[in-house]
Amino acid sequence: MSYKKFEEKYTKLADVSYAIAVLNWDQETYIPQKGSEKRAQQIATLSGMAHKMATNKKLGKILKKLKKDDSLSEIEKKNVKLALKDFKISTKFSTEFVMKESKAISTAFQAWIKARKEDNFDIYIPALTEIVKIQREKAEILGYKEHPYNALMDQFEPGATVKEIDTLFADVKEKLTPFTEKIFAQAKPNNSFMFQHFPHQKQWDFGMNILEKIGFDFEAGRQDLSEHPFTTNFGAEDVRLTTRVNEENFYDMLWSCIHEGGHGLYEQGLKPDQYGMPCGSAISLGIHESQSRLYENNLGRSKAFWIANYGELQKIFPENLDNISLDEFYKGINMVEPSFIRTDADELTYHFHIMIRYEIEKKLIVGSIEVKDLKQIWNDAYKKYLKVDVTSDKVGVLQDVHWAHGGFGYFPTYSLGSFYAAQFFDQAKKDVPSLEKEIIDGDNSSLLKWLRENIHQHGKLYTAKEVCEKATGEPLNFKYFMDYVSIKYGEIYGK
Amino acid sequence: MSYKKFEEKYTKLADVSYAIAVLNWDQETYIPQKGSEKRAQQIATLSGMAHKMATNKKLGKILKKLKKDDSLSEIEKKNVKLALKDFKISTKFSTEFVMKESKAISTAFQAWIKARKEDNFDIYIPALTEIVKIQREKAEILGYKEHPYNALMDQFEPGATVKEIDTLFADVKEKLTPFTEKIFAQAKPNNSFMFQHFPHQKQWDFGMNILEKIGFDFEAGRQDLSEHPFTTNFGAEDVRLTTRVNEENFYDMLWSCIHEGGHGLYEQGLKPDQYGMPCGSAISLGIHESQSRLYENNLGRSKAFWIANYGELQKIFPENLDNISLDEFYKGINMVEPSFIRTDADELTYHFHIMIRYEIEKKLIVGSIEVKDLKQIWNDAYKKYLKVDVTSDKVGVLQDVHWAHGGFGYFPTYSLGSFYAAQFFDQAKKDVPSLEKEIIDGDNSSLLKWLRENIHQHGKLYTAKEVCEKATGEPLNFKYFMDYVSIKYGEIYGK
Repeated sequence: MSYKKFEEKYTKLADVSYAIAVLNWDQETYIPQKGSEKRAQQIATLSGMAHKMATNKKLGKILKKLKKDDSLSEIEKKNVKLALKDFKISTKFSTEFVMKESKAISTAFQAWIKARKEDNFDIYIPALTEIVKIQREKAEILGYKEHPYNALMDQFEPGATVKEIDTLFADVKEKLTPFTEKIFAQAKPNNSFMFQHFPHQKQWDFGMNILEKIGFDFEAGRQDLSEHPFTTNFGAEDVRLTTRVNEENFYDMLWSCIHEGGHGLYEQGLKPDQYGMPCGSAISLGIHESQSRLYENNLGRSKAFWIANYGELQKIFPENLDNISLDEFYKGINMVEPSFIRTDADELTYHFHIMIRYEIEKKLIVGSIEVKDLKQIWNDAYKKYLKVDVTSDKVGVLQDVHWAHGGFGYFPTYSLGSFYAAQFFDQAKKDVPSLEKEIIDGDNSSLLKWLRENIHQHGKLYTAKEVCEKATGEPLNFKYFMDYVSIKYGEIYGK
Repeated sequence: MSYKKFEEKYTKLADVSYAIAVLNWDQETYIPQKGSEKRAQQIATLSGMAHKMATNKKLGKILKKLKKDDSLSEIEKKNVKLALKDFKISTKFSTEFVMKESKAISTAFQAWIKARKEDNFDIYIPALTEIVKIQREKAEILGYKEHPYNALMDQFEPGATVKEIDTLFADVKEKLTPFTEKIFAQAKPNNSFMFQHFPHQKQWDFGMNILEKIGFDFEAGRQDLSEHPFTTNFGAEDVRLTTRVNEENFYDMLWSCIHEGGHGLYEQGLKPDQYGMPCGSAISLGIHESQSRLYENNLGRSKAFWIANYGELQKIFPENLDNISLDEFYKGINMVEPSFIRTDADELTYHFHIMIRYEIEKKLIVGSIEVKDLKQIWNDAYKKYLKVDVTSDKVGVLQDVHWAHGGFGYFPTYSLGSFYAAQFFDQAKKDVPSLEKEIIDGDNSSLLKWLRENIHQHGKLYTAKEVCEKATGEPLNFKYFMDYVSIKYGEIYGK
């Protein structure tokens, strides 16, 4: 009886949260210019209501009672456990703190916009200093073992610790850095063909076709255009992707479409009967990113995938690609080069971008560095790891919005995603020996089936660590990523 | 201070109501097939929350206190008065009644779908009987003077009475019926050119262009496609129209686009600073419909409008219209003929469709006829007023969804709209002597300005009756409609 009550309350909370998601989706896709101001207000009102529902005392009582109920099923127990964790976290924050943070974020976002516009980090310093201060407080309120940054990461990657992430990035430094430096020294493949004129509608059609080919269910989702591509959902049966189309840069649509497609497949694979419940939700941002990265990189940047699809691409854009062989195309889309901008980075140098942010965040949170020195620290790190002289704040320390949003502890999940993806893809190939052949034949269904069975369907029933061990027989291991890139880029660049 | 509290509460209620409107809009436009079930649940949850906010005791107390506050401005007083009326109505209904009605509507809607599919009114009888029973109860709960139907009409057209509507339809019978019968006897103009192939994209572009020409602000709204055209809004600065495109019938897009455009202009003309307040909302469905009808008929089916726009239409569809003169086009789009379906009717016979429904509704509510006899009553009335033998239930008594939704008292507002439209348009021409000349020159801005000043901006500050008197110097008078059609159709058909 009590479980039913909990379920009812949680379903209603989900209804409100998904309504907020619809309002946000519309704001990013179709809203007319003058509608934005009131939309922000509508979202704020619903968010306040959702917060009240999430911290409702009756809900807390029901959950505490249910925690002792041994008659519940495994899924029910897990739902209760995670809902109680969320309840405890939500009730830790006073209304004053929530309002203070929300105000600081709003101020920081405005300052970030202005600083970028004027290409001047100094403008951002006071607001970002306040954000960091609040993040430090937040870590204390949340509570932690060993390192305050653990408390912040836990919001995005439950259970992740500085100790583990440090180990991963130690591997990055030790193994990926020298490997990538060797590649920097080689002749770069040509990718200039990606920057010809690719008409909008043809790009869109090709992207939609790719989404269908990887198994995205258009009866349970759709794709639209937005300035910044994203994935959202209003339940597992209504998953919305967005992409953008740049007619002079084919990369933009191609990678965002496959990347968001991977996120979307995860959401569509969650159990519809667990709507709104923890076991009907994604495990963590790291596991979510593992799905998008797996589709974008391990599948979407693979030779097998383009053996299946390059012919069609050439047919659509003959004037651009007729003179480019499959091999040239494959090497071109896998070109490795140092860059300023994280979101434009190839799959090797990407992790240096993340590592730099991770190191900075940790130090800011413990107070061993201060915001005012960030620009210098950033530029030094880019010189060291990416061998580039940052030419302006806009393409440097001001490039990401995350800090303005208070998203400390978020960045590491991007690297985690790639590393999990390599390990999952490796295991899928072992479990389905014909996998590569099927992909070459244009059939991506076994891959999706493997991910559905091993990852998607469970929702939060298992932790990231548990899912990884169940699926691959061991915890996250950087070796799989290193093996994957060593073989792939060894072939492309010559060993 | 109290007024501020009331405003805060009402703004939050509006935020939730508009969020529901966004969810509904998305459901009619972009939702993927499998998303509908959970969407209905999300809307139901938010509707429950909105109902709680609307019946919140504190709100009632504040309003009762404010009612005695003489220091309020005219607008503030009106907002308080109307909010108190709404509050009293909302609190009259028990949760049991609301749930009973909602269940009956859901059952009736399903039965209506099935009955239409099988073209068999009998299937619908039990569910519609229950709906009528509940409507009778509703009238008693709401309370009324003179006639229970007044209580039901008041929901859609505040202050409307059977006495007044009876007078209007007596005029329809006495004056419009013989006039229309004379037209039936004349040779029909040709309109077959409207049923050629008109490609989708060209129709869409022409419709968007017309919306711009009548002054729809695309920075504060947009148009999308849906199965049934409608207008909704999330505040005066975000107004959403939908249209539909039938490639073999140019009427569909053309009239729905101009009609919904008229609704949209009204919403865009409401005061943004009265967001969510009664004085920031449309007066009534009748006045709303007066705006859509004015644009659709008095403007959109006028010679002046097509002098301005027909040349462009011919340029877009030369293969369809090059051999059709402006005069032939104008006569064709104003062809009058008896028909089964209300929504396809011309602007004369339309009111017979409404009159038939109005008479039936009144009798059902007082119990002088019963649902089981409806089919015969319907068919007899169509024979009498429209001279047609109804060939199937689907194009007869089952054609409209309104009754399944419990919308008794709604239909008369359609006729009211046309009659108000004629009176407003007549006055606008008197107040702006150059109006017709401007329309011929393609400039519709003076018309919009007149409507903005005399109707749109006031919201509910004045009643329908007051707005009509302020704008035209007298209450609604059927004479204006009769004069309008006598002159127009006298010219088209010969006197």
